[in-house]
Amino acid sequence: MKKMDYQNVRGTQDYLPAQETIRRTIRRTLEDTFILYGCKPLETPILNYTKLMASKYAGGAEILKEMYTLTDRGERDLALRYDLTIPFAKVMAMNPQLSMPFKRYEIGKVFRDGPIKAGRFREFTQCDVDVVGIESQSAEAELMMMTIDAFNKLNIDMVIQYNNRKLLAGLLQFYEVPLSKINSVIIILDKMEKIDSITLLKELEEQDLIPATIERIKQFLNAKPTLAYFEQYRMENEFIQQGYEELTELLDYLQALNISERCVFNPFLARGLEIYTGTIYELFLKDGAIKSSIGGGGRYDNAIGGLIGSEEKISTVGISFGLDVIYTALEQKENNAAQALVDILIIPLNTEKEALRLAWQLRQQGSRVEVELSGKKLRKTMDKANRENIRNVIILGENEIQSGRYELKDMQTGEVQPFEIL
Amino acid sequence: MKKMDYQNVRGTQDYLPAQETIRRTIRRTLEDTFILYGCKPLETPILNYTKLMASKYAGGAEILKEMYTLTDRGERDLALRYDLTIPFAKVMAMNPQLSMPFKRYEIGKVFRDGPIKAGRFREFTQCDVDVVGIESQSAEAELMMMTIDAFNKLNIDMVIQYNNRKLLAGLLQFYEVPLSKINSVIIILDKMEKIDSITLLKELEEQDLIPATIERIKQFLNAKPTLAYFEQYRMENEFIQQGYEELTELLDYLQALNISERCVFNPFLARGLEIYTGTIYELFLKDGAIKSSIGGGGRYDNAIGGLIGSEEKISTVGISFGLDVIYTALEQKENNAAQALVDILIIPLNTEKEALRLAWQLRQQGSRVEVELSGKKLRKTMDKANRENIRNVIILGENEIQSGRYELKDMQTGEVQPFEIL
Repeated sequence: MKKMDYQNVRGTQDYLPAQETIRRTIRRTLEDTFILYGCKPLETPILNYTKLMASKYAGGAEILKEMYTLTDRGERDLALRYDLTIPFAKVMAMNPQLSMPFKRYEIGKVFRDGPIKAGRFREFTQCDVDVVGIESQSAEAELMMMTIDAFNKLNIDMVIQYNNRKLLAGLLQFYEVPLSKINSVIIILDKMEKIDSITLLKELEEQDLIPATIERIKQFLNAKPTLAYFEQYRMENEFIQQGYEELTELLDYLQALNISERCVFNPFLARGLEIYTGTIYELFLKDGAIKSSIGGGGRYDNAIGGLIGSEEKISTVGISFGLDVIYTALEQKENNAAQALVDILIIPLNTEKEALRLAWQLRQQGSRVEVELSGKKLRKTMDKANRENIRNVIILGENEIQSGRYELKDMQTGEVQPFEIL
Repeated sequence: MKKMDYQNVRGTQDYLPAQETIRRTIRRTLEDTFILYGCKPLETPILNYTKLMASKYAGGAEILKEMYTLTDRGERDLALRYDLTIPFAKVMAMNPQLSMPFKRYEIGKVFRDGPIKAGRFREFTQCDVDVVGIESQSAEAELMMMTIDAFNKLNIDMVIQYNNRKLLAGLLQFYEVPLSKINSVIIILDKMEKIDSITLLKELEEQDLIPATIERIKQFLNAKPTLAYFEQYRMENEFIQQGYEELTELLDYLQALNISERCVFNPFLARGLEIYTGTIYELFLKDGAIKSSIGGGGRYDNAIGGLIGSEEKISTVGISFGLDVIYTALEQKENNAAQALVDILIIPLNTEKEALRLAWQLRQQGSRVEVELSGKKLRKTMDKANRENIRNVIILGENEIQSGRYELKDMQTGEVQPFEIL
């Protein structure tokens, strides 16, 4: 068999134990935090009907280009999910019996056949929380509090940037950007921090806006506006008014919860997806070690209703964390000493059965125990204990069995403790 | 949008919170047990090259018919993994730096486009442990001990049936079954417990065996042989001898570990996959509530070497648990009272901010807390607390805020405890 045959597919990778241990910590920390916040677990299939994934209430044209599609033996048109949001909306549509508000989490694999950059994969894991049935900004505030809680536990220093789609769209409408161009202009403004101001203005000019409009956008960009800046415009149109009121309500919550310092208003934040209808937010590392966001979300009140075929707005707010990018953030911080995956290594000298029995007892007490069963030389096994940072070693020979006693050696301090074999 | 568009694909399903909570318990119990046994976590991609998944060292022709295949934008031929074994063998082939013995676990989704029966899905979760580099039967014994440990924790009463491929093949060779037919005959014998003896004999006759051979197989079947039965034949050929010795060694371990009562020798056990080369085993519920096995595995010493293109045997032993079938087993046992997913429900009466702040404090102490933020009527919210078995409720109104005190009501006992708002 040629080597070629056992390569990984481009954009996918294996996670070996050292990496996967960190990923497990992230996954469990997030999951445990979600549980404390009353989120209920949900699991949806990776395989979906293409029709569902391509619904107009889903991720939009850009993401559909990156969708993996296939046909099963029954000639059904299937697609691999590219996010956990549409599968969630599907569950809500299929299960009207679920009582509201409904707050669920799901951690699972998603797939996008897109360009590969550093830290961007074609198969990756998302960790999502969404809540349905809460109209007020308390939903957003609680998700932000949960986020801060989770990242505190992970010891990752981050900030949440937030904005409101209505506010931004309303302002652009007031600046006389044609309705059909509002989305494209928002996407350009979203690049603020990635491209220089000349390129930004050039891109705006390419939208064929009238000079007065461009001038006003320019002033807006230069103003580096705080939320208070928008007060003066709030009666200009309904969008500005609603957006401003929602953000004011949110800020009230953030202050009451003592988290307003970790949450920063960014009037240029847009988030690419067209699905959002209100408040939006993105998470960034405080030290800027990773430029792209490590999570984000917002309110999307039209998706579930749209899927059911109803005009009704169904209040829905979500947040999504990228396991892979959080892993990258943690990996950069970890000191290089590999985390020990085993507490005690038992080395039997022709005493495999007794060693396995002793291992059973120690495991019942909660120790992670490995028994060296390969018959490797003692020397080599001790090397392994060192290399893998295994703290304690027990050598179990005939003497130990006969005397009914063994010694537990602490490899770090050299200390030896005697125990009886039960 | 028509209803059709938000159905689930045939053979897939959503797991709603009540189910997913049980699945989470199973997943964590297995994972925590694997960790205590010194197993290291590994994560492999779902997307693989078709060539790898179709390797002759993989699952065999039957399983390839059920493989989902697709093409990506780069025109690569890809397949969804149908098990976790070949991806594991790939990791071993790609990473010669991994030190032996190497014991890993992986819990993940696999896909098979096969017939759907009760409890059989096209997308399902497997929980696998495999160990490379241990020649002796201590590897099998430790995996069996681990299995018993895990199922004890899950409170599921099961037995492990075991056998040895060499023993069975050697015996059939001794009975003069032609080499080319040994595998087909083994697969017929494997059906022992599923079909009646007349059908069994008929299927054997269809193999065109000579009458003397059939007669001897008949005697063998009637003998309901124990391991001791094989002693008399052990010098007849190398296969019988090796198989017998391996099983005797295994039995020694099982007795020394006090688990021989939970592990039963079944000389007709075959396991379908051709990959196995030595001891094999399957797990069954003791009460027989589910007829099919809930897990199984065995030794397969040729797969990793084969993938690397080496003739060398690389000792490999594995075990695999089906999350879905274990879920079915547990679901049948659970009493119908839904497991509570929330410990404390806080109902704010226009005190959302204070309620969220109190929730934060209680969560820091480890309670799972939900704050009712939808503005629902008090009555309806109390109904929900009852329906979801939420044990404790706090009603937080203006009075509570002003007095700085709230009451925690135990919904089961009616008891009320006063606390101060910090």
